[in-house]
Amino acid sequence: MNILSGLRIVESVAFVAAPLSGMTLAQLGADVIRCDPLEGGLDAQRWPLAKNGRSLYWVGLNKGKRSIAVNTRTPEGQELVTALIASPGEGGGIFCTNLPATGWMSYEKLRTRRDDLIMLNVLGNADGTSAVDYTVNCAVGFPFATGPEHGQAAVNPVNHVLPAWDAVTGIMSALGLLAAERERRLTGKGQLVRLPLADVAMAMVGNLGWLAKAQVNDEEHFSVGNYLYGAYGCEFRTRDARYVYVVAITRRMWEELGRTTGLTEKFRQLEAIYEVDLGKEGDRYRIRTAITALLEPWFAARTLADVDAGFAGSGVCWGPYRTFQQLVREDARCSTANPMFKAIEQPGIGSYLVPSSPLQFSLHERESPRRAPMLGEHTDEVLSELLAMTTAQIGALRDRKIVGGPIELPARPH
Amino acid sequence: MNILSGLRIVESVAFVAAPLSGMTLAQLGADVIRCDPLEGGLDAQRWPLAKNGRSLYWVGLNKGKRSIAVNTRTPEGQELVTALIASPGEGGGIFCTNLPATGWMSYEKLRTRRDDLIMLNVLGNADGTSAVDYTVNCAVGFPFATGPEHGQAAVNPVNHVLPAWDAVTGIMSALGLLAAERERRLTGKGQLVRLPLADVAMAMVGNLGWLAKAQVNDEEHFSVGNYLYGAYGCEFRTRDARYVYVVAITRRMWEELGRTTGLTEKFRQLEAIYEVDLGKEGDRYRIRTAITALLEPWFAARTLADVDAGFAGSGVCWGPYRTFQQLVREDARCSTANPMFKAIEQPGIGSYLVPSSPLQFSLHERESPRRAPMLGEHTDEVLSELLAMTTAQIGALRDRKIVGGPIELPARPH
Repeated sequence: MNILSGLRIVESVAFVAAPLSGMTLAQLGADVIRCDPLEGGLDAQRWPLAKNGRSLYWVGLNKGKRSIAVNTRTPEGQELVTALIASPGEGGGIFCTNLPATGWMSYEKLRTRRDDLIMLNVLGNADGTSAVDYTVNCAVGFPFATGPEHGQAAVNPVNHVLPAWDAVTGIMSALGLLAAERERRLTGKGQLVRLPLADVAMAMVGNLGWLAKAQVNDEEHFSVGNYLYGAYGCEFRTRDARYVYVVAITRRMWEELGRTTGLTEKFRQLEAIYEVDLGKEGDRYRIRTAITALLEPWFAARTLADVDAGFAGSGVCWGPYRTFQQLVREDARCSTANPMFKAIEQPGIGSYLVPSSPLQFSLHERESPRRAPMLGEHTDEVLSELLAMTTAQIGALRDRKIVGGPIELPARPH
Repeated sequence: MNILSGLRIVESVAFVAAPLSGMTLAQLGADVIRCDPLEGGLDAQRWPLAKNGRSLYWVGLNKGKRSIAVNTRTPEGQELVTALIASPGEGGGIFCTNLPATGWMSYEKLRTRRDDLIMLNVLGNADGTSAVDYTVNCAVGFPFATGPEHGQAAVNPVNHVLPAWDAVTGIMSALGLLAAERERRLTGKGQLVRLPLADVAMAMVGNLGWLAKAQVNDEEHFSVGNYLYGAYGCEFRTRDARYVYVVAITRRMWEELGRTTGLTEKFRQLEAIYEVDLGKEGDRYRIRTAITALLEPWFAARTLADVDAGFAGSGVCWGPYRTFQQLVREDARCSTANPMFKAIEQPGIGSYLVPSSPLQFSLHERESPRRAPMLGEHTDEVLSELLAMTTAQIGALRDRKIVGGPIELPARPH
């Protein structure tokens, strides 16, 4: 029993945001049934790939779900998925899609089968036109504010590599579903929930103050490299060619940085020279390069292990930079020392560290991470359990290639 | 009436993730009461700032909340906040903090006053040590995979500017609160919910397949510049010195790109030369530079307006790059043409575009965006409404500087 046990979501999804939404709910105990074409959906081969060509991305975003493989290009396949969505039960009648929600998959059509249907439609743009993380991120200002400082606006865009808008949209989708399910519990009413990825991004730019800066100050924002905008934060190279990031946002972080590096007195001298008060975050930002020039030799004289030892137990807020491989090799938080992770076996791929939900609820034991299903691994189970179909009925559907599975994800060695 | 009307959350928070959580719930109709020291909290002066020195960031992340200013360094102030948290009501008894949850603010202490208390504690690291977006992001691999391609691992880290982990953690916190509130409705039981920002980041790296790539493939991931990893996506410069990003993740996007640029036949010739199948996303990635060399002249010969006209109505997935100022000046999605935005007046700062929630619920009219409160704007209202205090009682608290407000955010012109 996990916190969302009893909820059931049927999904017809691809790529990041919508699959992440279902996976997030599955990791909290919801029964999430992903419907895919017999040969896999649009995202069945998305990179990163294992060396044998199977998608590490697909198995990452579909953990803990059940999978049914069904050909929805046929009326019979459409009817099966509709029946699954509309199947009775207090926690059921919830459908999530980011594919075109038209025809048999429209809210109007589906709700004729279950009046209290909750449907989540994750969109690119609010008007239904297509947009993905990359084509939205370019529009919202951040790429021109990322990367090495060059003092110019609107040149040298640097894209993020984390699909951040997908990630935020995915979690917000799950939030929208829970909000709608809460209302259904209180009133008995279902509804359509829409979430456009572009709106998620533009709202966040507003939430963080960047739209106001552009409008109220009539001011462009240039990249400041890796500096933390508005306080002190900078990366340093250590003697053993490692990098660390150090921040001093609060006054206490700043004081601790001075104390542990022995530079408090020199920082005071900087205050006199530059006529600033380094107790104030904005002043630390203003003379950031002068502060960095004092700190650089301290880091350059020390190895990463020395820095770690020097800051241990202090109030300095810092962290080492790591590649993905260094992360899994060095960081205890990304190992089985962290109860969020377990090494589990994903059939067809191998054994590796898999996370469960980062949310910890005191009334529930942490659920062990679960692997992703094979394509159509639960076809028979789901049809028999939710639609009370017999083995003979399912066999007939299989014969006509209306349903299928289990099969491995399609693979193409690279 | 919005979808979360009837919920009440008391929060004692700072910076991004935790305030964003409360704001997200406030925008869906919850009554969110932020408690701050009389002079403002740790984040009251965070940049970006208006030219008059007021925090655009603070007002962005506290929209639609009520504000009470109370000195919790005094036992009386602590008792007031405790009484607010524990005040009766079906939707109340929910507390959120990312400050040290010890002493009077510990879950154990607070739940003695309301047994069904739900408390959300947003942490840096799971062990309670401090970590912020910047000191976690550096550890999770992305900065070494961002920025210009250079073919080396573990050099030239490029930080993201969007505090993506804060954003994801904030929305996931709101999800955790709704999940706990759902369980309380079903069982009557409250609980402690913990969410460490570091775990959010490391889980997401796993969800997206990067941990598996590092472990199963034993392979490092280098930056590929602005290329989309594993399919085709690239930025182009137009004749009028603008930039656009074009993606071809699905086969249809790829075919439309060839059709609209008139390059289908040349793409076919590339397939023969490089012995690849450009209908497959991985092959488009493999010969990305050859594809780019064909497309570059097409974009260089056209203005942004030409590109827009050329792709209009097609299935090409693309978007222009924009600075923050270009975003508010050019993008209809970031204007009052989008019902998510309204220009509203924030006292002490001015009028600018403010977003409401990107979530759209069919049973609810979209709520108009609301401004942030002044510090302590609702001190009297909240104390009288929730604790039934009289004007005389509140006046006495004011005289002893236990409560205060309303005041403007502290300002320091820059």
